[in-house]
Amino acid sequence: VSELERIARLRRIFGGARPPLTLGIGDDAAALTVSGTLVASVDAMVEGVHFERAWLSFGDLGWRATQAALSDLAAMGASATAVLSALVLPANVSDADLAALAQGQAEACASVGAQMAGGNLARGGELSITTTVLGMAASPMRRAGAKPGDGLWLAGDVGRAAAGLAALRAGRDDGAIAAWRRPRARIEEGLRAASVAHAAIDLSDGLARDASHLAEASGVKVMLDRAALPDGEDALYGGEDYALLVAAPAPIEGFRRIGRCQAGQGVWLDDEPIEPRGWDHFG
Amino acid sequence: VSELERIARLRRIFGGARPPLTLGIGDDAAALTVSGTLVASVDAMVEGVHFERAWLSFGDLGWRATQAALSDLAAMGASATAVLSALVLPANVSDADLAALAQGQAEACASVGAQMAGGNLARGGELSITTTVLGMAASPMRRAGAKPGDGLWLAGDVGRAAAGLAALRAGRDDGAIAAWRRPRARIEEGLRAASVAHAAIDLSDGLARDASHLAEASGVKVMLDRAALPDGEDALYGGEDYALLVAAPAPIEGFRRIGRCQAGQGVWLDDEPIEPRGWDHFG
Repeated sequence: VSELERIARLRRIFGGARPPLTLGIGDDAAALTVSGTLVASVDAMVEGVHFERAWLSFGDLGWRATQAALSDLAAMGASATAVLSALVLPANVSDADLAALAQGQAEACASVGAQMAGGNLARGGELSITTTVLGMAASPMRRAGAKPGDGLWLAGDVGRAAAGLAALRAGRDDGAIAAWRRPRARIEEGLRAASVAHAAIDLSDGLARDASHLAEASGVKVMLDRAALPDGEDALYGGEDYALLVAAPAPIEGFRRIGRCQAGQGVWLDDEPIEPRGWDHFG
Repeated sequence: VSELERIARLRRIFGGARPPLTLGIGDDAAALTVSGTLVASVDAMVEGVHFERAWLSFGDLGWRATQAALSDLAAMGASATAVLSALVLPANVSDADLAALAQGQAEACASVGAQMAGGNLARGGELSITTTVLGMAASPMRRAGAKPGDGLWLAGDVGRAAAGLAALRAGRDDGAIAAWRRPRARIEEGLRAASVAHAAIDLSDGLARDASHLAEASGVKVMLDRAALPDGEDALYGGEDYALLVAAPAPIEGFRRIGRCQAGQGVWLDDEPIEPRGWDHFG
């Protein structure tokens, strides 16, 4: 089918524009009515780097790429308004595959009340999904701002996605596989945290690494409680959980306490400093 | 160097955030203060599909990818506010190459008064640059809206980029090469047109093809004047000029008349209908 017909099919999957979106898929750009602080982020998933097709369906891939991008909005305490999707499609991705991928994206958008507003289709040798997310935040949370005395609070799991990925690589059936295939951006938890938390980050590169980013940006020492975390290395170093970590002076519904912030620097597990190693595309 | 150091270097090239951008490169997302109609678009350039490295420098590539994406804002009659860049970088792209690419992007942003607000770096086997552009439009132009009796007005060249690309492929030196390597989004012309024009589109796939999109969306027949166009096939079918085509009832500064709209359908060159063939990634 032609590129125009492909776009018409995608428009049917994603549905028509509704407020605040005034122009959606099919024009040169999307348009939306906005007032306040717009938050914008972009994230890419590349075949062979971030996933293998054997590990998930095209529907899972669309869901996962979209939720991973939306997680950056959660980290800012933003709502999710609109999503743009740029796909690079090798010749061996069929029209049915594309429709399944779009369906997964549509479900992910619907799960947080966002709309797919537009995108781009390009041919290429390597399958990739680059997702731009737009949302609104009354007062964006940042990595900087945590204070000594703040509690460290977690919404979501740590290490589950890594366990699921290990199972997929090993060809084992495991309940954790769904955690890797079907992550969930913590938009609601982020919105709840935004009025209370001093700092926040989403966990894409593992707790140790991402906590070190928060510690460094805030100029504090992050103290993790071993007893509050699951056993095993994955809890500290496993990436792609898209859990939400915030520093806040008081409890927040949906978050559990896993540590605290002190004067100093670095990330500590009980009384020992830990290396902030994690997943680095360029490592 | 590490991913964090790479991002720090990019932040130095792009500079710090200034209003309306309140958070730029380095947090989980960018934040900007907005009020009105936000226009958003995304565009990708993939090595081997849209360019070969032999044809342009990394600086040209950054400029070209950014201007091509910005051109969609021009087509909407929007200003250019912020840009996000998602790069997939093969191992054979050096840190110096990345810096040169970013410098080209920074120059392109500066040329229209936009800021690089954030992005994503990923490893991959195939070099690609996916650019998200955000701007504001008082009243966005669309492909739909042209009326019988409107003049058809052009800002920029048609066929020059295709001639430049042909010269590059053939290894010839040619003045048109700069038109392909260094296109310019017609942001100012789009802003001038927005209050007058009934419809607009930017020319990425060639005049014949893009005029047919405008004709179809508007439900009009587009009549091109052969005498107003350069000689040769490239003027009709050459893509990637990023010129701006608008349907308007009156002249607009910076635009020249190349035809008119009538009741009917399709694209005509003087008294003959022409095929809307053009460049199709999926052709």
